[in-house]
Amino acid sequence: MMLKTHDCGKLTKSDVGTKVTLNGWVQRRRDLGGVLFIDLRDRTGIVQIVFNPDFSGEALDIADRARSEYVLAVSGEVVQRDPETFNPNIATGEIEIRVKEIEIMSAAKTPPFPVEDGVEVDESLRLKYRYLDLRRPEMQNTLLLRSKAAKIFRDYLDDNGFIEVETPILTKSSPEGARDYLVPSRVHPEEFYALPQSPQIFKQLLMVGGIERYYQIARCFRDEDLRADRQPEFTQVDIETSFLSQDQLLDMMEELAVKLFRETVGAELSRPFQRITYADAMNKYGSDKPDLRFGLEMEDITDIVSGSDVKVFASVAGSGGVVKALNAKGCAGWSRKELDDLQPFAARYGGKGLAWVTVKEGEWRGPIVKFFKPEEISALTERLGVEEGDLLLFSADKKKVVADVLGNLRLKIGRELGLIDDSVYKFAWVVDFPLLGWDEEAKRYVAEHHPFTRPHEDDLHLFETDPGAIRAQAYDLVLNGYEVGGGSMRIYKREVQEMMFKALGFTMEEAYESFGYLLEAFEYGTPPHGGIAFGFDRLVMLLTGRTNLRETIAFPKTANATDLLCDAPAPVEPSQLQQLHIRTVPKPSAKPGQAEAPKA
Amino acid sequence: MMLKTHDCGKLTKSDVGTKVTLNGWVQRRRDLGGVLFIDLRDRTGIVQIVFNPDFSGEALDIADRARSEYVLAVSGEVVQRDPETFNPNIATGEIEIRVKEIEIMSAAKTPPFPVEDGVEVDESLRLKYRYLDLRRPEMQNTLLLRSKAAKIFRDYLDDNGFIEVETPILTKSSPEGARDYLVPSRVHPEEFYALPQSPQIFKQLLMVGGIERYYQIARCFRDEDLRADRQPEFTQVDIETSFLSQDQLLDMMEELAVKLFRETVGAELSRPFQRITYADAMNKYGSDKPDLRFGLEMEDITDIVSGSDVKVFASVAGSGGVVKALNAKGCAGWSRKELDDLQPFAARYGGKGLAWVTVKEGEWRGPIVKFFKPEEISALTERLGVEEGDLLLFSADKKKVVADVLGNLRLKIGRELGLIDDSVYKFAWVVDFPLLGWDEEAKRYVAEHHPFTRPHEDDLHLFETDPGAIRAQAYDLVLNGYEVGGGSMRIYKREVQEMMFKALGFTMEEAYESFGYLLEAFEYGTPPHGGIAFGFDRLVMLLTGRTNLRETIAFPKTANATDLLCDAPAPVEPSQLQQLHIRTVPKPSAKPGQAEAPKA
Repeated sequence: MMLKTHDCGKLTKSDVGTKVTLNGWVQRRRDLGGVLFIDLRDRTGIVQIVFNPDFSGEALDIADRARSEYVLAVSGEVVQRDPETFNPNIATGEIEIRVKEIEIMSAAKTPPFPVEDGVEVDESLRLKYRYLDLRRPEMQNTLLLRSKAAKIFRDYLDDNGFIEVETPILTKSSPEGARDYLVPSRVHPEEFYALPQSPQIFKQLLMVGGIERYYQIARCFRDEDLRADRQPEFTQVDIETSFLSQDQLLDMMEELAVKLFRETVGAELSRPFQRITYADAMNKYGSDKPDLRFGLEMEDITDIVSGSDVKVFASVAGSGGVVKALNAKGCAGWSRKELDDLQPFAARYGGKGLAWVTVKEGEWRGPIVKFFKPEEISALTERLGVEEGDLLLFSADKKKVVADVLGNLRLKIGRELGLIDDSVYKFAWVVDFPLLGWDEEAKRYVAEHHPFTRPHEDDLHLFETDPGAIRAQAYDLVLNGYEVGGGSMRIYKREVQEMMFKALGFTMEEAYESFGYLLEAFEYGTPPHGGIAFGFDRLVMLLTGRTNLRETIAFPKTANATDLLCDAPAPVEPSQLQQLHIRTVPKPSAKPGQAEAPKA
Repeated sequence: MMLKTHDCGKLTKSDVGTKVTLNGWVQRRRDLGGVLFIDLRDRTGIVQIVFNPDFSGEALDIADRARSEYVLAVSGEVVQRDPETFNPNIATGEIEIRVKEIEIMSAAKTPPFPVEDGVEVDESLRLKYRYLDLRRPEMQNTLLLRSKAAKIFRDYLDDNGFIEVETPILTKSSPEGARDYLVPSRVHPEEFYALPQSPQIFKQLLMVGGIERYYQIARCFRDEDLRADRQPEFTQVDIETSFLSQDQLLDMMEELAVKLFRETVGAELSRPFQRITYADAMNKYGSDKPDLRFGLEMEDITDIVSGSDVKVFASVAGSGGVVKALNAKGCAGWSRKELDDLQPFAARYGGKGLAWVTVKEGEWRGPIVKFFKPEEISALTERLGVEEGDLLLFSADKKKVVADVLGNLRLKIGRELGLIDDSVYKFAWVVDFPLLGWDEEAKRYVAEHHPFTRPHEDDLHLFETDPGAIRAQAYDLVLNGYEVGGGSMRIYKREVQEMMFKALGFTMEEAYESFGYLLEAFEYGTPPHGGIAFGFDRLVMLLTGRTNLRETIAFPKTANATDLLCDAPAPVEPSQLQQLHIRTVPKPSAKPGQAEAPKA
């Protein structure tokens, strides 16, 4: 067997005269008057190899049988090309290999799509033949960057005293959170393991166990209906620390992010990252993961229009809602159609409508302008900084609806006006998330993060008076409108934990039923602790400029959780189920007379 | 909150005079005439902190409430101890902290066992309270070493051009191998994912995908009945390469092993590691994972005794079996009871008995001696190097039985005679495993490794004549009698793959039914490739001198696959099962009249 002495893509003029053996795949072949040129590809790149009757002998005849994606081994000498045949598009463009010996290592059928970047192929075909898709340089580079990013995370954490600890994949179904994947037990009939949605409980147990600084690049599982940026199994960089303040932890994580972006994409991020409270983020950007690469902040004008003749403004303002406005600078020239299209856009985010005003030739125009009083116009002009050519957009509704409508409108306008610089990485910490949210259905407070999230020390008195106003020591790291990480400091004092469960409507005894072993652990000396988890797939997606998580994963699943390559999930043998003490229940078909679902 | 400025275990005389804040757990407290001494522990070690009415003020009163495993924060000054109170047993033994301020961060109930090394506790109690168990220095050190070992693996592989790629956990049930853990699909009724027994197929697909050098520290799953050194989920360092020879790969892995042992336990291993063929290992040591820290090799004496009057020897020799002997040097003095105990020992490994001869005062003694002819005694004396004081042990049976009996006897005697130096790490490669084994039940050959294992080039002709004699390019790395790694070169040529399946009794069409997508991938240009996987848990076990895999895993499962800490597996809500389109089948009880299992 002729095994490689050199990599294809690394040969340069300095290798001229060297005898080399190369292994690789046939990218392309050209026969020019009896001389055969083959572009040979390995993971480092492409080099031109030449077969000529003058120096190749019978190697030429063998090479002549090679087709696209055959695997070849060739030996020969590196020579400089004629200057007029230099190829500036490839690193090895000034040299070629005069082949003396060849071995066809293996043959290849014609691939279902060309193995090259930029080719338009249906994604399902790419996933079915993922092993061919992975040969394309952009996929190779993505996996390379992913591997490098993992190393940067690990090196930083190792250097800062973190211990990598593996936590179980076969664990217990948790009472909160998303839907679990279950694994029937053979040894324990009618019992199940669950795959972890995150190592949350284990990492807190490790802190109780005195590990002080833990990390793991952990696989997590959620059996949810998928969107473009969700996968049933995904990877997070999971971190937990003891005896650090929130600021100390966030500083450390910033340093890590700076290193990550410097060493992968060469970006120099400035520190400290902006810190914005959840309240400010929602007020100004209508989002808890604002894209801060551009301004276009929304302004609350409820106070100005609370007595307005614009009926909807006044009535919303009078019933606890808010009225907010965006000033789309220079957009007064939008067409009627563009303005009309805003209504269905608003509806998509739950809004009942969008009012607009254009400012043209010094004049406010639009259906609602006639209802404004002069003092309202003057107050709005000042608050919104209104100038000639502006387009003002108003949403009046419940706070959350206004945030959704104007927040998404802000992004749409930002993109359309080219306000977003794609070369910029704009990080920020969103801090002071609310500890509790009111569940209208259950008529009780629920934990916004999880029941172990530590409230702000200064807000403890609010447990008695206004639990909804308590700020949590919880934070998200956002990048260009994506949440790339999030976490919290955790409760470590029994009395605070009791206040928390009381606010959630549980006694400690009831809490034990759900969180028994973690609460029990907390009784044996719990250090102040807190952590964070980074969405690794999403970070790699942003680092590689992709818009789809599947592009960052070697063997991803489709939106309906199928692996097209190995055809999973799939039926199994009845004997396998029998050993697991389970039986499948056929989905009720919709045939007449069978419409009712069986009562299980 | 008073957060640590220093680590407890790292303070030395050079810190005298420094004001420090420490956080940690109360290891021990002693009240000596109104002065309170507490040993405060964090993950770096222990330091003595002192509360004295003279300088501690009310901190003394607060400290007085602290009990074992309370978490404290203390501030004070590092002072040198009186020389007569130096404690040479701890690193900080020459200093102590005069505490001025204290905060009880959290209280602790009395732990169910003392948090210290060497304590005798029932393992199930340790597992239930694993978070307390993990506070013990030996568990902390184990997790620290495990983390360090992972880093050494990764650093070496990163430095040598390997790319870390994550492969799916939710994948497809494989037709071969051990029992799979299954995961019912909610989206695809009556279909199942399987958890991977190893990333074998994916790593080969990555080679087809042109990754060339892959690694992953991968979680693997096998639903088997457990032994002390098995876990339902375990970790392997999974490696695959393209365009390397077996020797190149093994050399690289040796370099990695040398680095690992140097940087964790400071052992200097000499290279190259011994390479021993499977045939030699079985012949000399009766094992494919021989402990090579001592000799005591077994000798084949079938030729000498084939015409012997020792009936069992002659008849075994005449019917295709073998007769082998061990010379236990200096053991002629074993008591009759010790010799009698050898019979049940042999029986445990399938042997029908063990013949023995002692050599005392120049004379051979034992029940079978009278049947030996003088020329047999003289031939045996020469082959076995018999001397005064020796004990000869004979086993006659099928080859495999003799290997098991004498192989295990060799280990037992080696241990009892103190022939094994526990401070030595003796690595060896066992190579040239057989490609195929004869399955007596199925009356056909089966793959000893897997159906993609590459046969020796020189042995290809044996497919026609003697498939059982074909040597595979398969290898195990053994250390002190444990298999710590194993792998093979893989078939990359269609015609060899066809020969292999033919030998296994399959047509290519039938093979496609089992291995469809991998075989299809092989049709699109397959590089010569091969790999290895290291048992990471077992390596950590050997590096830390443990004898139980559970000691190396933060949250292990018991022998019946239970997680005692979080009580998994466990029953789940009926609604969860309904969503997964499954129903549990109660285990048939053994009540009279219900003895028959339901037909599923």
